[in-house]
Amino acid sequence: MLLFRQCHSLTRVGLRKTQRLQRPLEAVPSVLACAGSLSSRWGSSYGGQESGEQSQRAHGPNWRHALAGLVAGTGAVLAYGLNHNQAERAATSTKMQLMNQDSSQPIYSQDEVTKHRSLEDGIWVTYKGNVYDITEFVSMHPGGDKIMLAAGGDLEPFWALYAVHSQDHVLEILSEYKVGELSAMDRQQQQSVVSSDPYSSDPARHPVLRINSLKPFNAEPPPEILSDSYITPSAIFFKRNHLPVPRVDPASYRLQVEGLPGGVLSLSLEELKTRFPKHSVTATLQCAGNRRSEMNKVKQVKGLNWGIAAISNATWSGAKLKDVLQAAGYVSEVTSWACHVQFEGLDSDVTGTTYGASIPLNKAMSEEGDVLLAYEMNGEDLPADHGYPVRVVVPGTVGARNVKWLGKIVVSPDESSSHWQQNDYKGFSPGTDWDTVDFKSAPAIQELPIQSAITQPAEGTVVDRSAEEVTVKGYAWSGGGREVVRVDVSLDGGKTWQVAQLRTNDKGKAPAPSPPPGQAWAWKLWELTAPLPPDAQELEIVCKAVDNSYNMQPDSVAPIWNLRGVLSNAWHRIKISIRDDYEEDDM
Amino acid sequence: MLLFRQCHSLTRVGLRKTQRLQRPLEAVPSVLACAGSLSSRWGSSYGGQESGEQSQRAHGPNWRHALAGLVAGTGAVLAYGLNHNQAERAATSTKMQLMNQDSSQPIYSQDEVTKHRSLEDGIWVTYKGNVYDITEFVSMHPGGDKIMLAAGGDLEPFWALYAVHSQDHVLEILSEYKVGELSAMDRQQQQSVVSSDPYSSDPARHPVLRINSLKPFNAEPPPEILSDSYITPSAIFFKRNHLPVPRVDPASYRLQVEGLPGGVLSLSLEELKTRFPKHSVTATLQCAGNRRSEMNKVKQVKGLNWGIAAISNATWSGAKLKDVLQAAGYVSEVTSWACHVQFEGLDSDVTGTTYGASIPLNKAMSEEGDVLLAYEMNGEDLPADHGYPVRVVVPGTVGARNVKWLGKIVVSPDESSSHWQQNDYKGFSPGTDWDTVDFKSAPAIQELPIQSAITQPAEGTVVDRSAEEVTVKGYAWSGGGREVVRVDVSLDGGKTWQVAQLRTNDKGKAPAPSPPPGQAWAWKLWELTAPLPPDAQELEIVCKAVDNSYNMQPDSVAPIWNLRGVLSNAWHRIKISIRDDYEEDDM
Repeated sequence: MLLFRQCHSLTRVGLRKTQRLQRPLEAVPSVLACAGSLSSRWGSSYGGQESGEQSQRAHGPNWRHALAGLVAGTGAVLAYGLNHNQAERAATSTKMQLMNQDSSQPIYSQDEVTKHRSLEDGIWVTYKGNVYDITEFVSMHPGGDKIMLAAGGDLEPFWALYAVHSQDHVLEILSEYKVGELSAMDRQQQQSVVSSDPYSSDPARHPVLRINSLKPFNAEPPPEILSDSYITPSAIFFKRNHLPVPRVDPASYRLQVEGLPGGVLSLSLEELKTRFPKHSVTATLQCAGNRRSEMNKVKQVKGLNWGIAAISNATWSGAKLKDVLQAAGYVSEVTSWACHVQFEGLDSDVTGTTYGASIPLNKAMSEEGDVLLAYEMNGEDLPADHGYPVRVVVPGTVGARNVKWLGKIVVSPDESSSHWQQNDYKGFSPGTDWDTVDFKSAPAIQELPIQSAITQPAEGTVVDRSAEEVTVKGYAWSGGGREVVRVDVSLDGGKTWQVAQLRTNDKGKAPAPSPPPGQAWAWKLWELTAPLPPDAQELEIVCKAVDNSYNMQPDSVAPIWNLRGVLSNAWHRIKISIRDDYEEDDM
Repeated sequence: MLLFRQCHSLTRVGLRKTQRLQRPLEAVPSVLACAGSLSSRWGSSYGGQESGEQSQRAHGPNWRHALAGLVAGTGAVLAYGLNHNQAERAATSTKMQLMNQDSSQPIYSQDEVTKHRSLEDGIWVTYKGNVYDITEFVSMHPGGDKIMLAAGGDLEPFWALYAVHSQDHVLEILSEYKVGELSAMDRQQQQSVVSSDPYSSDPARHPVLRINSLKPFNAEPPPEILSDSYITPSAIFFKRNHLPVPRVDPASYRLQVEGLPGGVLSLSLEELKTRFPKHSVTATLQCAGNRRSEMNKVKQVKGLNWGIAAISNATWSGAKLKDVLQAAGYVSEVTSWACHVQFEGLDSDVTGTTYGASIPLNKAMSEEGDVLLAYEMNGEDLPADHGYPVRVVVPGTVGARNVKWLGKIVVSPDESSSHWQQNDYKGFSPGTDWDTVDFKSAPAIQELPIQSAITQPAEGTVVDRSAEEVTVKGYAWSGGGREVVRVDVSLDGGKTWQVAQLRTNDKGKAPAPSPPPGQAWAWKLWELTAPLPPDAQELEIVCKAVDNSYNMQPDSVAPIWNLRGVLSNAWHRIKISIRDDYEEDDM
């Protein structure tokens, strides 16, 4: 920690000299400097992540988490705004052009390139044997400061991780910064360590999913499917991966629990399943970026362009985190020095840095908190995309803290130092932009605010006037165990409102009783059937939900717009048209 | 409980025969029928509430709470919309006219009048010797079904309790329903039991308070005073009384704790102070009706016309409710059958019915819930208006559950059956009106949603352009211990936003550290100084706050309008003008 702090303060001094760059790059040169001694290892880690990860573990979590902040904030890297299909099709021809060596340009050795990895010395990178000075580009990189991790090295392993880069215009931009070529010897050496596709072991997915990013895999079900079942089938549950899916061998899997008076507890999967009572909780998970696409319509934000279905509901089973922490030596005195429970995933980036997040200790230990170390989803082993063999399920809390492929739990005075806890998944004022944002000024998102959306009819639906009525369906959920108590639906853009019917399980089943206060973890599906207004040609259908703390959704998107496009929970609006019957007759 | 349920079902049958009346009168005739045997006691209770209260206690709480629902929902009775000053000035001449007996009309005995107390038989009442058939008026009564309690009896004791009735137009309305006069003998008997003013022992109040209702006393401080001190001085802390202030003798005071395995625990004030550790909590209390006046501008609601200052912040000291319940025999098994902790105040209406409310048991027993049985406010004995000698302080929870002049605590499977828990202090859709409202369909308000308001400058302020900048101040708070993490301020009606500075204590003091998660009970004051926009003649200043669950305030009032005008937490907006300097020179 001390090391990181020192590096950080050095950086601040350095940055003041470089007025041109006002981006949140503060931590970058310091991290690179701190990590300097490791640069020789990067090459080996490209070829084999696991060995790289192990060799770097000895350096402690701090610089590695800082690196993670630079490398792998995958939410941000898709800001180019193109979808994966375009990405897949793109660029082969351009690549070829760029790869042609232009012998009139200077030839550089890898050593010379490696000297250029600070704003003062310039930022150089290589790609397919060419050398680029991207110093000017760094502040314009849509993925933010993550680009700095490649400083002095090769772009290719990072681009393999974030497939969004495989697009014509990305290569065109890069070509503007070409300053020379890599020496033949260094080029040969580089090719020998080029990584295989880190996503090659990702599982097969259901074709109905709407893919927002292929690598890492991020996808949501079609909205109308979402409200068809109270429990979302695992195959169509939204997928939100930050990194390649790790393939974990259940026989050799160990879960490490650290930071408690009992010392380190190491549990096999079998021990987790047999030593602790099995609990089941039906809980809705929602990505912080759900409905981000609506914010993009106000003004472009950084992140995956989620529709309204980055939310799903499942029954999770496993051991209570509380029980495991108690087995690891938790006693009430721990609260005198510890406030957080950190989680580390087994999914890792090219540097071996794992996904990480933390939750408040009082949520973890609360009798009513229901935090699970889940090994089952909807009655079966967790699927690979959802964290096999073990994930954390933190009911009422943003998806990002529900760490998948769980490898380690650390009880600590501090929040997770990971990128996703410190420099992502936070909310800001609409007036805050990338030039002014101070990530330390906002709390990490934990509980999410009240949310609802219309899943049926779809935007642009045409209904016949002879139908006489319209049925509107959707979901509603609130964070922190707050129960949805009402959903209001308007057919006239919000002027008048009707109350929808709520349901808490699949159709035909008897209504479930209200959960105890503060433990309403699952969404409610809702439905309203209303007569078509006689003269309307178009309906603007709007929904808004209320939870039992009487929190309401904000009316409009612009005033809650934020640069990362998280927490998008304004009223959901869709438009449908009414076709008069005579028109139908004409057809 | 059984008695009440039976009465209730009888009522439903009765009401179906009376299609004309669609008001929420369901419980009324049954309650009157149930309470029929007590009618002879009402006379004595007019003269002396305390003896009346004691004699009726034997009948158990249920019918009495139901009566309370009819008599004393004071929030609703001020819907006539006139303030107390007008009320005080009104009506002497009209009263005199109405009192003149018109000998051409029939003379009725009290026995005949008493026969008319149902919708089938007609609803008759007396007032100053005249007899009125108000059957037609009942459904139009702005105070709702409370009027039914006077059915077959005299209005005067109720009107003494709710001074809003002392207005010319109320007497004019009544005169339309006159059907005769009371016999001289019955009139004489009635005069002998006419109550003295039940508010005569109310304490003196600070003259700076803005009074919304004198009897019962409801008042708020001027907003600019509110943000001048982080801890609100007790004298200007908003006052929200539902009934006359009871004068409690500290020497004979007893607090009863019931419903736990240990039997009834009875504590003197001294025992409460000495047997349990003293805890202090700084907590903001807010009336559910704070900012109701903004809802009235959309469409008239029922309730006191609160401005933005029905909220204040104090330091409360006392025993933890948790400790007292444990002393009364609470064990964890209690949660298998009990879910609520009911509170009864010592303030009572003409029937002896006391104020009542309840909170969830898990809030009461939670280590972090910080629920106090407070006997001090800001370091001194509780003032009479704030519950002397003992009140409940439920941090993070709507004012209405913070029962003052606490007499009894009951641990129970059920919520309080009081009017204020069952048929008031609930939120509804803007589409719900008094014809369609079903109070059972909404949860009793407990935690309140995120709130903020501008205390300075005041609406309509004129600032000189030479001042160059404007300073905006206000408060922000959220229920449930959720910490306010940001306040956004706009000078252009919500188009662009700046982030205000927050503070958590009085000026000049070092900033306090953040409270543990879920225990942010106190408001934050905020301030923003911004340059005056060069060309603007008028500024529309807007504020909105965000809590650490990232709940946001709704943009506008109309979509959250509800028939009782509670939960008014839309963005707060004020307009100020900028005067150009030359205008000033001209003056």
